[in-house]
Amino acid sequence: MKSDRLLTLITAARQFYQQGWMVGTAGNLSIRHDDKSFWITASGKSKGKLTQQDFVRVNLAGEVMELSHPDNRPSAETSIHQVIYTLFPEAQACYHVHSVEANLVSNLSNHEAISLPPLEMIKGLGVWQEDPQVKMSLFENYLEVPRIAQAIYDRFTIALPEIPALLIRNHGVTVWGRSPEETQNYLEIVEYIFRYILAARNYSYQ
Amino acid sequence: MKSDRLLTLITAARQFYQQGWMVGTAGNLSIRHDDKSFWITASGKSKGKLTQQDFVRVNLAGEVMELSHPDNRPSAETSIHQVIYTLFPEAQACYHVHSVEANLVSNLSNHEAISLPPLEMIKGLGVWQEDPQVKMSLFENYLEVPRIAQAIYDRFTIALPEIPALLIRNHGVTVWGRSPEETQNYLEIVEYIFRYILAARNYSYQ
Amino acid sequence: MKSDRLLTLITAARQFYQQGWMVGTAGNLSIRHDDKSFWITASGKSKGKLTQQDFVRVNLAGEVMELSHPDNRPSAETSIHQVIYTLFPEAQACYHVHSVEANLVSNLSNHEAISLPPLEMIKGLGVWQEDPQVKMSLFENYLEVPRIAQAIYDRFTIALPEIPALLIRNHGVTVWGRSPEETQNYLEIVEYIFRYILAARNYSYQ
Amino acid sequence: MKSDRLLTLITAARQFYQQGWMVGTAGNLSIRHDDKSFWITASGKSKGKLTQQDFVRVNLAGEVMELSHPDNRPSAETSIHQVIYTLFPEAQACYHVHSVEANLVSNLSNHEAISLPPLEMIKGLGVWQEDPQVKMSLFENYLEVPRIAQAIYDRFTIALPEIPALLIRNHGVTVWGRSPEETQNYLEIVEYIFRYILAARNYSYQ
Repeated sequence: MKSDRLLTLITAARQFYQQGWMVGTAGNLSIRHDDKSFWITASGKSKGKLTQQDFVRVNLAGEVMELSHPDNRPSAETSIHQVIYTLFPEAQACYHVHSVEANLVSNLSNHEAISLPPLEMIKGLGVWQEDPQVKMSLFENYLEVPRIAQAIYDRFTIALPEIPALLIRNHGVTVWGRSPEETQNYLEIVEYIFRYILAARNYSYQ
Repeated sequence: MKSDRLLTLITAARQFYQQGWMVGTAGNLSIRHDDKSFWITASGKSKGKLTQQDFVRVNLAGEVMELSHPDNRPSAETSIHQVIYTLFPEAQACYHVHSVEANLVSNLSNHEAISLPPLEMIKGLGVWQEDPQVKMSLFENYLEVPRIAQAIYDRFTIALPEIPALLIRNHGVTVWGRSPEETQNYLEIVEYIFRYILAARNYSYQ
Repeated sequence: MKSDRLLTLITAARQFYQQGWMVGTAGNLSIRHDDKSFWITASGKSKGKLTQQDFVRVNLAGEVMELSHPDNRPSAETSIHQVIYTLFPEAQACYHVHSVEANLVSNLSNHEAISLPPLEMIKGLGVWQEDPQVKMSLFENYLEVPRIAQAIYDRFTIALPEIPALLIRNHGVTVWGRSPEETQNYLEIVEYIFRYILAARNYSYQ
Repeated sequence: MKSDRLLTLITAARQFYQQGWMVGTAGNLSIRHDDKSFWITASGKSKGKLTQQDFVRVNLAGEVMELSHPDNRPSAETSIHQVIYTLFPEAQACYHVHSVEANLVSNLSNHEAISLPPLEMIKGLGVWQEDPQVKMSLFENYLEVPRIAQAIYDRFTIALPEIPALLIRNHGVTVWGRSPEETQNYLEIVEYIFRYILAARNYSYQ
């Protein structure tokens, strides 16, 4: 059902807004409609009080298929969602948010990946190893978002990421999953890990 | 409608109070009534539980036009709001809050401005640049608030600020916008940036 | 009205609990009943879900006058409240909470007072000065609370405190005011100042 | 009553989730059913929205006695709860959560225990001493949780812990108590102490 799907995004957006991950209209959430299109938050809306009017449906080529309100424009960052749904056919939702912590972590490395600490929480990302050694992909930010999307497409076509999450420098984290619930769990875990990484540096260990 | 306007301020004040930006009666919010006057929170009220009785309407000269309760006094900081509405005729709302972070950031510079980091979030302040270089105006604090207001008027008459926000040392941030929604978005973004600035110093980069 | 008074404390306790200032049954709140007695939270109750059954009324000598439930015992810290109401006849409420920040600040000095930073928020404690220089009284902690209470009595009998608040080392802050609203405002301001003091040390200024 | 017990866990889990202690399905809570079995959260459920369908009843040998939904599996960490209820017959509840702070503190020592600071809050763990010197037990993490459970059993059989709480490195804290209320109070206190320990290191004292 369309309204169920939008309600799922509305509820998630309000929760992420309250946690400070989507302030000032930042970020965007999407959910797959069918194999060839997805619903995404329209541009410029406060994420703490979305309504069913605040969405756009676009196909994997980025063409608008349906507007829940005639004034809506798709987010500038829709191209990143297109790439995720194209690369990962099993993905049913894709969440992009801007926590302060994600931005701080994105500046900890000049390389293309960030090493994650060996926390038990890593199991929640689907990695069952003792003392797990996992890396999260990191991309450069560009004013033109399609250029970022292309970089993601190019790199992930060559080698799949280790976990269903990626960072863009100064521009938040993006996660995806096989259901909205799984996607939210992944987001909570990566944001938890960001908080851990920053605090651990602070105490001069890890 | 008067009651709609006051309800907008009541709701915003409660949210900012809960975020720790308006504790102990600190700060004040205003919304334009017409081109020549605005409603502002009365002095000494807890911002977490304002009612429609807790406002004063003043004109651009600071004269009281209307009281929502006969005991109300305009806030001591009304003069700053007068200056903002005088300088920026398009401003429909002006929010002044006191976060811990704003006060900390206000002590990071002895100059008249603070440099902001090149976050993607800067786009939300209306600045669309790659690697944006933006400064926020900083003013000295004085016991007599009209003296602060005069300094703002004098400096901004010579050169407009780059973004719709200003800091007063040890005395919080003030933002304004073309609607209450835009003003709140701007406030959320500048407070986000303050958190980023402080944390980034902590981790010895930026 | 008794029930109005208790409801005021119940509401305040829930809010302070949610802010992390009264976790694990810590702290206690009181409100004056008449010039010779006050209601105080009973010992060992979770402050997030008090009911009207969770209070004790004691007189200024610490004798129990009334129990809202027969099993109630007065808090071990009642003696501190006795001293406050005895020394400050205008006090109508007294709140004692244990934030992490208060305990950290209490370890920043070996002296009998902590210097507060010159924030605009200081005005909210009744100090109207440019660049205000204010100190908060600091007391040693003892296993026997009446010994702490005696130290407060002795010192404040010689010289009144500059502001209506005091710290006990590793044992939280106590504030009082001419109404429950004023007492809560004072508490919010001193906790705000504690957060500022700690963060300012962190960034190596102030 | 079964439903009362499950509701107690549902309410506690939602609160701990909101505090960031059970994000991404992490952690698990249990409550004793009778001397020979206990209810525990089923594996893989979001702790912010548990229902009465999300539990499993197991006996002290880890055998499933009852499922509140046929698809439920007991948590991988059930073995830790078995050990706690076996060692401490008076325990009526056992809560295991994963705060960022617990994981950070678990890395502060290479030894088998963490020293706690002499805070007044320590009284809430049942230790009434002036300047209390208390240690919390620390265990190594293993991919196979029963191996952790065995280590707990072995060490506590030789010497009981000083307080009803234990840490596993990178794997959160576990507390238990004579009632769900007491267990929650203990959890709140140990998490408070973790925040204090970390912040105190930050300010280079304690």
